[in-house]
Amino acid sequence: MRKTTPTHGFTVAHDVPVPEPGAGEVLVAVTRAGVCGTDKGIYEWAPWTADHVTLGTTVGHEFVGRVAAVGEAVTRVREGQRVSGEGHLACGACQPCRTGRGHVCSRVRVLGAGVDGCFAEYVLLPEANVWPVHDAVSDDIAAILDPIGNAMHTVMTADVAGRTVLVTGAGVIGAIAIAIARAAGAGTIIATDLSARRLDLALEMGADHALQGEDPEWPEQARRLTGGAGPDVLLEMSGSPTAIRQGLRSLGSGGTAALLGVPTQPVELDLLNDVVFKGATVHGVFGRRMFETWYQVENMLVGGRLRLDPVISHRIAIQDYDRAFGLMSSDEAMKIVLVVD
Amino acid sequence: MRKTTPTHGFTVAHDVPVPEPGAGEVLVAVTRAGVCGTDKGIYEWAPWTADHVTLGTTVGHEFVGRVAAVGEAVTRVREGQRVSGEGHLACGACQPCRTGRGHVCSRVRVLGAGVDGCFAEYVLLPEANVWPVHDAVSDDIAAILDPIGNAMHTVMTADVAGRTVLVTGAGVIGAIAIAIARAAGAGTIIATDLSARRLDLALEMGADHALQGEDPEWPEQARRLTGGAGPDVLLEMSGSPTAIRQGLRSLGSGGTAALLGVPTQPVELDLLNDVVFKGATVHGVFGRRMFETWYQVENMLVGGRLRLDPVISHRIAIQDYDRAFGLMSSDEAMKIVLVVD
Amino acid sequence: MRKTTPTHGFTVAHDVPVPEPGAGEVLVAVTRAGVCGTDKGIYEWAPWTADHVTLGTTVGHEFVGRVAAVGEAVTRVREGQRVSGEGHLACGACQPCRTGRGHVCSRVRVLGAGVDGCFAEYVLLPEANVWPVHDAVSDDIAAILDPIGNAMHTVMTADVAGRTVLVTGAGVIGAIAIAIARAAGAGTIIATDLSARRLDLALEMGADHALQGEDPEWPEQARRLTGGAGPDVLLEMSGSPTAIRQGLRSLGSGGTAALLGVPTQPVELDLLNDVVFKGATVHGVFGRRMFETWYQVENMLVGGRLRLDPVISHRIAIQDYDRAFGLMSSDEAMKIVLVVD
Amino acid sequence: MRKTTPTHGFTVAHDVPVPEPGAGEVLVAVTRAGVCGTDKGIYEWAPWTADHVTLGTTVGHEFVGRVAAVGEAVTRVREGQRVSGEGHLACGACQPCRTGRGHVCSRVRVLGAGVDGCFAEYVLLPEANVWPVHDAVSDDIAAILDPIGNAMHTVMTADVAGRTVLVTGAGVIGAIAIAIARAAGAGTIIATDLSARRLDLALEMGADHALQGEDPEWPEQARRLTGGAGPDVLLEMSGSPTAIRQGLRSLGSGGTAALLGVPTQPVELDLLNDVVFKGATVHGVFGRRMFETWYQVENMLVGGRLRLDPVISHRIAIQDYDRAFGLMSSDEAMKIVLVVD
Repeated sequence: MRKTTPTHGFTVAHDVPVPEPGAGEVLVAVTRAGVCGTDKGIYEWAPWTADHVTLGTTVGHEFVGRVAAVGEAVTRVREGQRVSGEGHLACGACQPCRTGRGHVCSRVRVLGAGVDGCFAEYVLLPEANVWPVHDAVSDDIAAILDPIGNAMHTVMTADVAGRTVLVTGAGVIGAIAIAIARAAGAGTIIATDLSARRLDLALEMGADHALQGEDPEWPEQARRLTGGAGPDVLLEMSGSPTAIRQGLRSLGSGGTAALLGVPTQPVELDLLNDVVFKGATVHGVFGRRMFETWYQVENMLVGGRLRLDPVISHRIAIQDYDRAFGLMSSDEAMKIVLVVD
Repeated sequence: MRKTTPTHGFTVAHDVPVPEPGAGEVLVAVTRAGVCGTDKGIYEWAPWTADHVTLGTTVGHEFVGRVAAVGEAVTRVREGQRVSGEGHLACGACQPCRTGRGHVCSRVRVLGAGVDGCFAEYVLLPEANVWPVHDAVSDDIAAILDPIGNAMHTVMTADVAGRTVLVTGAGVIGAIAIAIARAAGAGTIIATDLSARRLDLALEMGADHALQGEDPEWPEQARRLTGGAGPDVLLEMSGSPTAIRQGLRSLGSGGTAALLGVPTQPVELDLLNDVVFKGATVHGVFGRRMFETWYQVENMLVGGRLRLDPVISHRIAIQDYDRAFGLMSSDEAMKIVLVVD
Repeated sequence: MRKTTPTHGFTVAHDVPVPEPGAGEVLVAVTRAGVCGTDKGIYEWAPWTADHVTLGTTVGHEFVGRVAAVGEAVTRVREGQRVSGEGHLACGACQPCRTGRGHVCSRVRVLGAGVDGCFAEYVLLPEANVWPVHDAVSDDIAAILDPIGNAMHTVMTADVAGRTVLVTGAGVIGAIAIAIARAAGAGTIIATDLSARRLDLALEMGADHALQGEDPEWPEQARRLTGGAGPDVLLEMSGSPTAIRQGLRSLGSGGTAALLGVPTQPVELDLLNDVVFKGATVHGVFGRRMFETWYQVENMLVGGRLRLDPVISHRIAIQDYDRAFGLMSSDEAMKIVLVVD
Repeated sequence: MRKTTPTHGFTVAHDVPVPEPGAGEVLVAVTRAGVCGTDKGIYEWAPWTADHVTLGTTVGHEFVGRVAAVGEAVTRVREGQRVSGEGHLACGACQPCRTGRGHVCSRVRVLGAGVDGCFAEYVLLPEANVWPVHDAVSDDIAAILDPIGNAMHTVMTADVAGRTVLVTGAGVIGAIAIAIARAAGAGTIIATDLSARRLDLALEMGADHALQGEDPEWPEQARRLTGGAGPDVLLEMSGSPTAIRQGLRSLGSGGTAALLGVPTQPVELDLLNDVVFKGATVHGVFGRRMFETWYQVENMLVGGRLRLDPVISHRIAIQDYDRAFGLMSSDEAMKIVLVVD
C-alpha cells in the first residue's frame, strides 16, 4: 500500500518482490498493523504531508509480525520471533544520537513516510529498531506499541506519581496516557475533549473527571477539582492551540507540562503569566526514548495492570483499508487495527 | 506514657495538666496512635536509645486526632479539624532547612524521643507540622501516615514506574512500600524476608515474587526473574547488613538503591563491584520530605487505589500497651494501632 | 521614597517614624540600594504597574544595610550584622511553600510593590528573608544580590556545564548570567542584544560571540557557531517576543530554554517545530529559589572567581533619584546603585 | 607492547603486521599514549589483573593519533583525521546499551585488557568509539582524554556549581577533577591526599585548601571550612577505604558523593549515620558517558578555560617504557605521556 501520487488515497502494488535483508537488517512478515492519524493525513494528502512524505513510499509504521529473515551481522534477533519495531530510524552519528537521545536525532528517517513502511506483507528494519514482543502481550496491543510508547514517553517526562494530572485531548494516545498515568500512581486525573464519546472513554481508562472542552469554564473547574491549586501536571495530547492555552492557564504554580499534541499552526501564549511567573516547565515530547520507553511499556504491560484494550475499536482486513480510513473521519472509531494474512 | 527510667517499660503519668499551645502551636486531642519499632526499642531500652531519647519524655510519634486548641499566630489550622502530623521538628534555620530539605535538618528534634509525643491524651505541635487529614482517609490509616510517608519517600526517591523492583524486608514499611511501588507503576516486584508470614503479606500487597531471605541463592533468582539483568531498583527496608549486601549484588547495572532500613552496626560492602563498576546510585532515605511526601501520600490514598489496610494487624486500647509491645516481639503482629478514648 | 499617585515620579516622605520590628521581624538600616527596571516601570507608572503596586508603598527591593533592631523570636540574625534580603515574601502556607518551592508561592507579596521597600533609611523584613552578607562581598555587589540571584536561578535551571549557551538580552541580568554561565563551565557562549554597548559588555563578561539582534541571520549564525547543532541551552533575558522566537528556533535538538525575561504581551510560537518536534524543555523562571539560589551566589562570589563589577555603571546619592531614573532611559546606564547615608 | 606472561613487565612484539580495518572499523596510527595506573597494575601483574586481562593482549588505552585507514561502512571518520577514542567497547545490545547507558554495558570489552590496545604503532577501533579531536586541543591533552573523561563524568554526576566540594585523592584524575570542579563553578574546594607533592598540585589546579590525609582531624577541619555544615559534594578519587569512610563522615546533610576510586577490598561503612540518617546520595562512577562526557570535555577545553597541563609530568619515548613504569612508583611522576614516532 503505497503513496504514489500527491492526491487522495493509496495505491496497492502487487507482485512486489520480497526484499532481502542487507547487513544488520531484519525482514518482518507483518500480521497486524495500527492505523495512525498520520496515516490518515497521508491518505488524504493533508497540507503538511508534502514536506514529510516521499512519493512511492509504502505507508504505515505501527505493526507486529514474525521475523522472516535476518541479514548478515544480525546478532540479537532470530528468525520466527514475534516482533514489533521502532519506526524512527535514528542516524546514530549526530550529537543527540551519540548522547543517548536518538529520539531527537537531527537526521531521523521515518517508517511509512521517508522509508517503506508496514502496510504491506513485509517490512524491513535495522536490527537496532526491532523489538521482540513479550509473550504476555496480545497481537492487538503489540501492533500499537508505537502510540503506547508516545503516551508512555509523555507521561514519564512529567513524573505523575502522587500528583494531580490534567490530560487535554482524549483521542487514542490521550486515552492511553490516562491509563498509564493511572497505573503510574497519579492522584486526581482530569480529562478534557470536545467529543462526548472520547470523554466516556477517558473515564473508562481511569480519569476521575471528564470536562467538555467547549465549556470556557473548564480551566476554572480544573483548579477547583485540584483544591484550588491547579493540576501539578498537564499532558497535552490534542495539538489544539486553545487547549494548550487553557491547559497552561490552569496548570498549578511550578507545574510541569508535556506537549505531545501536534499544533499545525503557530500558537499564541501568555508566556508571562502561564509560564514565566508560574515557574512552569514545558517539555516538548517527540517519539519514544530509544529504547527506555519500550522497556517501560513492556514492564507495565506484562504485569497485566495496564489494560489498553478499550482503545481498539475496530479490526479490519488490510484489503478494506478504504473503509478504515473512512471510519477514522467519524466519531465512531478509536484505534483501528488492520489484519494481514 | 513516658520513658522515665533507663530500664524496660514505660511509666504512665496521671493528672498531667493539659498543655497550653504557645504562639504558632497546635494542641491535638489524640484518638489513635501507631506503634513503631522505634517505640519498641525505647520500651525495651535498646542500646541505641540512650543517645537519642531524653528521659522523662512522653513517647509515640504516629497519631491522628482532633485539634483541641490553637495558639496565637496560628493561621492555617482550625479547632476541631482532624489532623495528623510530621514528627520531625525541623529547626528552620540550618542550610538544609533553608533550601527546602527540612527532612535532613541538622538540628532536627523528634516527637516521642526528645520532645513529648503522642502516647497521651494530648500532643502539642508547631502549626507547620500539622497535617489536616482528608475525609477519604480512615482513622486507622491516618494514625500511620508517618510510616506510610517513610515508604512513599523511599519509593519516590528511586523512580519505579516501568522498572523492576526488589524490596528487601517486608515488615510494615516494606509491605507499604510494595503497595506504593505497585500503585506507582512498577514492573515485576520481588520481595525478600526471613518470615513466611511477611512474605505472604508481601504477595498480598502486590509483590509478584516472595523469596526467602535465608536462601543464599535468592540474589541469583532475583536476576533470573528480571531477565538476567538484575532489578532496576532496590528498596532496602530491613537494615540487615546481609540483605543490603545481597540487594546491592543483585541490583542491575546502573541501578538505583534507596536505603531506609536502619543498620545498627557497620556494614561491609563490596563497593568496587556492587557500586562503582556498576555505576549504581545509592540514596540514604530519612523521614519524609516536608511536605511533598505528605501531598503524595494524600493524592495516592484519596483515589482509593492504594489499599494499606492489610498491614494493620491489631487495634488495642492504649491502656493495654504492655500487651501491644509483647505482641511486637512475636511474628504475629504487623502494625498495631492504639486506640485512645 | 513612595509611590503615592498613579502618575510619573515618586514622592519623598519626610519625618516618617522608624518602624518597630514585630515578632520575627528585622529592621535594617539601608546603606545602598540597587535600581531595577521594575522600579523604573513604577516610577513611570507603566501600564502593568496598576495591577501590581499598592499606592502609598515605599518602592525598592534591592539593598544592603546593617541590622538596626530585631523583634521578638528572632533567633538567627543579630543587631549590627551586614545583611541583604529576599524581596519575595512567601506565605509559607500554600502548597508550593510547603514543598520547598517558595519562589512560586501562590500568595507571594513583593517588597517595594505591595509591601514597603528599601528606597528609604530603614526597611522591615521577616527574619526568614534576611540574608547575612559574607565579608568577601563588597557593598555594591551586596546591594544587587537580588538580580544576581535572578541570573543564578536562570543559569542553574538550565545546567550549562560543558554545554553551549545562547543568551538573548545582555542587559544587567543578562550580563550577569553570562558571567555566571562562564564561571559555571559553559562551553561557547553566544550573546545577542540590540544595543552595541550591551554587546560590548557581554564580551567583557565572558561571552565568546556577540550578535546584533537586529540581524535576522543571527539564529543561523548561532547554529554555525555551535557546530551546526544549535546551542544546547537558551537563557532568555530580554522578554522580547522576537528574541524568544528566534532563540527557540536556533536551540539544538533536545535543548533546554530558561525564560526569565518578561514579555509584556502574548507571544506567538512555532510550538510544533521549535518545542514539540525538537523535544525541547522550556523552564519559566521566577525570582530566586529560597534560599538555595542565595547559597549558590555566595559560594560562587566568595572564591572571587565571579567578577560582576562591570555591570555597575553608576553610584548616585539616593537624593538624586530623578537623575538615576533619567539615566536608565539612556543607553549609558547599566546597574545604578543608590547610596544612602 | 604486549602482556604475554603472568609476570612482571611487557614483551615488545616486532614485525607485527598492520591490522586491516574490517566493516565499521577504523585504524589509527598512534602518536602519543598516556600511561594509566591500570597499565602499571598490568605491568606488575597485580592480583586483580588475572581476572581482567587476556594474556597476549597489547596494552594501553589512552591515546591520540591519525586515522590511517577506514573499513567499509565507516561514514563519519575520514583518513588523516586526528582522533582519540573511547576505550570501553560497549556491546550495543544489552539493556544499559539500549537505554543510552553504554558506560555500564554489562558485556563491555576494554581496550588494552581484553582487546588489543594502543601501546603500539597502530590501534583498531569501532567507528562509534572514535573521537575526532578539536584543533584547539594539544596532542598531550588529546592523549589523556580518557582520564579527563573519568574526572568529568565524576564531577558532572555530582553537580558542583555553587556548592562546596571535597576531593579525596589528588592523583592525576583527582587533580583533573579539581580543575574541572573549579571551572564548573564550585565554591570552596578542599582536597586531601597523603602526598605533599600531590597536595601542592591540588592547590595549583584550583583547590582552596589541601589537607594531609594522615591527620585524623581532617574531616572535622573540612566541616569547619564549610561553615560547619560539611561539604555539599564528595568526589572520591583515591579508592582508599579510610578516605571513603572519612569523606562520607564529613559530607553535609543531604550531600552527594561520587565514587570513582577503586577500592580493592571490601569497605566497612557506617551506613546508618553517614548515608541513611544523612539522606546522602552515593553515585558509583564508571568510565565515561558515551559520548556526553566527551562533548562536555571538548566544550570545556576549547574555550581555553580548563588548563590541565600541570598534571603531565613527563614525556617519554615509548621505547623507554620501563623507565616510565619505574617513575610511576615514585612520588615524582604524575601523568606520563609516551611519545610514538
